[in-house]
Amino acid sequence: MTFRARHLLGIEHLSQEDIRTVLDLADRYVDLNRRTVKRTDVLAGLTQINMFFENSTRTQSSFELAGKRLGADVMNMSMQNSSVKKGETLIDTALTLNAMHPDLLVVRHPHSGAVDLLAQKVNCAVINAGDGKHEHPTQALLDALTIKRAKGRIQRLTVAICGDVAHSRVARSNLILLGKMENRVRLVGPPTLMPAGIGEFGCEVYDDMRAGLEGADVVMMLRLQRERMDGGFIPSEREYFHRYGLDAEKLACAKPDAIVMHPGPMNRGVEIDGTIADDINRSVIQEQVEMGVAVRMAVMDLLAQNLRAERGRALVEGQYV
Amino acid sequence: MTFRARHLLGIEHLSQEDIRTVLDLADRYVDLNRRTVKRTDVLAGLTQINMFFENSTRTQSSFELAGKRLGADVMNMSMQNSSVKKGETLIDTALTLNAMHPDLLVVRHPHSGAVDLLAQKVNCAVINAGDGKHEHPTQALLDALTIKRAKGRIQRLTVAICGDVAHSRVARSNLILLGKMENRVRLVGPPTLMPAGIGEFGCEVYDDMRAGLEGADVVMMLRLQRERMDGGFIPSEREYFHRYGLDAEKLACAKPDAIVMHPGPMNRGVEIDGTIADDINRSVIQEQVEMGVAVRMAVMDLLAQNLRAERGRALVEGQYV
Amino acid sequence: MTFRARHLLGIEHLSQEDIRTVLDLADRYVDLNRRTVKRTDVLAGLTQINMFFENSTRTQSSFELAGKRLGADVMNMSMQNSSVKKGETLIDTALTLNAMHPDLLVVRHPHSGAVDLLAQKVNCAVINAGDGKHEHPTQALLDALTIKRAKGRIQRLTVAICGDVAHSRVARSNLILLGKMENRVRLVGPPTLMPAGIGEFGCEVYDDMRAGLEGADVVMMLRLQRERMDGGFIPSEREYFHRYGLDAEKLACAKPDAIVMHPGPMNRGVEIDGTIADDINRSVIQEQVEMGVAVRMAVMDLLAQNLRAERGRALVEGQYV
Repeated sequence: MTFRARHLLGIEHLSQEDIRTVLDLADRYVDLNRRTVKRTDVLAGLTQINMFFENSTRTQSSFELAGKRLGADVMNMSMQNSSVKKGETLIDTALTLNAMHPDLLVVRHPHSGAVDLLAQKVNCAVINAGDGKHEHPTQALLDALTIKRAKGRIQRLTVAICGDVAHSRVARSNLILLGKMENRVRLVGPPTLMPAGIGEFGCEVYDDMRAGLEGADVVMMLRLQRERMDGGFIPSEREYFHRYGLDAEKLACAKPDAIVMHPGPMNRGVEIDGTIADDINRSVIQEQVEMGVAVRMAVMDLLAQNLRAERGRALVEGQYV
Repeated sequence: MTFRARHLLGIEHLSQEDIRTVLDLADRYVDLNRRTVKRTDVLAGLTQINMFFENSTRTQSSFELAGKRLGADVMNMSMQNSSVKKGETLIDTALTLNAMHPDLLVVRHPHSGAVDLLAQKVNCAVINAGDGKHEHPTQALLDALTIKRAKGRIQRLTVAICGDVAHSRVARSNLILLGKMENRVRLVGPPTLMPAGIGEFGCEVYDDMRAGLEGADVVMMLRLQRERMDGGFIPSEREYFHRYGLDAEKLACAKPDAIVMHPGPMNRGVEIDGTIADDINRSVIQEQVEMGVAVRMAVMDLLAQNLRAERGRALVEGQYV
Repeated sequence: MTFRARHLLGIEHLSQEDIRTVLDLADRYVDLNRRTVKRTDVLAGLTQINMFFENSTRTQSSFELAGKRLGADVMNMSMQNSSVKKGETLIDTALTLNAMHPDLLVVRHPHSGAVDLLAQKVNCAVINAGDGKHEHPTQALLDALTIKRAKGRIQRLTVAICGDVAHSRVARSNLILLGKMENRVRLVGPPTLMPAGIGEFGCEVYDDMRAGLEGADVVMMLRLQRERMDGGFIPSEREYFHRYGLDAEKLACAKPDAIVMHPGPMNRGVEIDGTIADDINRSVIQEQVEMGVAVRMAVMDLLAQNLRAERGRALVEGQYV
């Protein structure tokens, strides 16, 4: 086991062994969550603060449930109504929060890099729950766990990530993770929704969806994020579905046992046909949500172990952390 | 004891014995809540999610307190800021939530039948905290407990439900419960605020309030729900109070020991005169709030027992619930 | 030890000994909070409700953390979305809440005196978390603890409170507390931002900031509360900073070891220069936040002891509280 970091800011900082450590522990939490009595106490006495500068009922709930199941005291700060509005800087917000001695800080922020900046100013463990177009590491880890449980491995697979790649931190974190684990990643979508400089990740780019899905083990659909498109080309939903929406006919190009994923919330009839989303033989969309709670439990458990070890060392040396 | 259901979706599904089971257990919780130390652990290890698609500080707080007093982990999801806004369907929201393995799901929704639909898609216990103009079963149960404690019985009483019946799920659930328990129910209010087809419930309808209160044991006032009146007749507050507001003179038509109820929040001077609302010899409005917490504790306790029993059976058969 | 009150409504009701009792207990909680495992159970089984009629992420979080660290069940009621909007009066809201049997009620309200009114209607302990321009007692107590730890005493000090005194309940509570503890208090700011009748508190008033800071041990800056200035004179930020903003040059008038305080959130470059705020040799702004959690733990601990004693007596006499 490795995973010795103070924070989880992005997949880019994790080694292959770190990723395996998280997935193995998360796998055990999946089973625990399916049994009747759920509470463990690995986070007992610790305070988890969820600080969402961008609304996300789904991700925040997943982190809140994960913390409560591990016995943490969980506090949600809705930053839309906060001091930020009164003109406080992000760094002052971070310092204020730090002075309250939280242990785990889960942060979502609309600007890429904001979570890294905040992490430099605090003594506790910080988890990036999505920052701008940068990273969303727990989403990539939960997707990896879902793939591993469905396919028996998270290596040497052909994964097609399809749709609005340009605006997606989900795509970016997945791309990095799948690359580290030695998979073959294809990006599929209209050129206007592909980010610049995508070539550096060493993945193939497809404009034609049928070609992109050819022989894929995993078809990972993305949400069309109209709310993030400022000024650029916005396709009509009908045209988009026709060319890039996943339906039975396009899915037939992938391997017969290919699985279908979506990070949610879905736009049925835009990125994905409802029948495909509901097909329990192909779609693992509900499993992704379930794996989300387990992966977040594993990440917080590991970070809390590191924090406790660090504090133990500091105490020996007569310092506070 | 009966009450073997998975969910509490409406009073219409309960037998007389089910209702008695809830009221008897709730009665014991009233006493427990009045003592100093409040926590019990009948819901320890269980996760309760409050999912309010319509704001209600009062009802949500009552459910939250009830769950915490029983030792549950309680999570509030404010659905106004949620994936619903991003175009997710109710069924997808339900499936997502279900994948997080909650145990008790408390749902309020502006559309009649939405809670029933949601309950069909999840494995946990669902409690209807109000759906459209349909049902609000815990309100009817807390009203019944309040009546029972004030009158010594919840049978063979004359109950006048007064005001805006057409827009009231409170009225509808009370009407069904009081009928099942063999009481005589009168509906009192302007014909424009009476629902169509009210005759089928076998209750008397009065346009004149004095006649409607004549000999009543219980006077149950309803809130004038202007926010639900779309397009139809909206009476002036002054005119409404003159004809249908409860004041000392109209209350004199009821029995001398008649009690006065209101589900809150009150519009003083519209449905009810402030002096009557504050008269501790007649008004049981504060008791209703207190009974609310106790009834919700009883309902969640009973549903959790059923859920545990169901899971125990499933475990024997090698399945997950 | 004294502090025998049911509520904490304002510093004006506290004796010198009461203040010392709170500060001594809070001092011990500071140390507890700096250690790894944080949970104690002095509030176990008790329900704390935070009822904020005015948004304040910072103060509400501090109270929530304080309660959770002491083992209370904490419930936040966001009163902006509440029954208040549906026309309910403050007294009806109080009575409703009281019927749910909370133990500790933390209230912030935009109107001076509203918290006192509410306290008269409930059986539980009420803590004023700020009411209009009246009092904010836990802020004054946390400021006192910060001063005491930095200066070794909370007596015979010269304290300059600077800026928008007129709109500040923080200033008012501090003025009362510092006076009771026999300090010399100066109010510094433009005459338009000084409240009428300030002479009665026996403090000196300065229009010139350099003169006001001369020989001060403590420089307490206030937030410029534009949101509270209705109709009156609003200075330009640049002009205000030039005359009343704390910078190195003005601070040089105070004693060489003077400390700098600010209740937050700060307007950098308006009331205070960023360099001064970040100077760890002078600024105790982060310590104030840390002391805030400890002081609120101490206050709730003491009030809960009083509540339990009162209930014990009532039980002997056969009454409920």
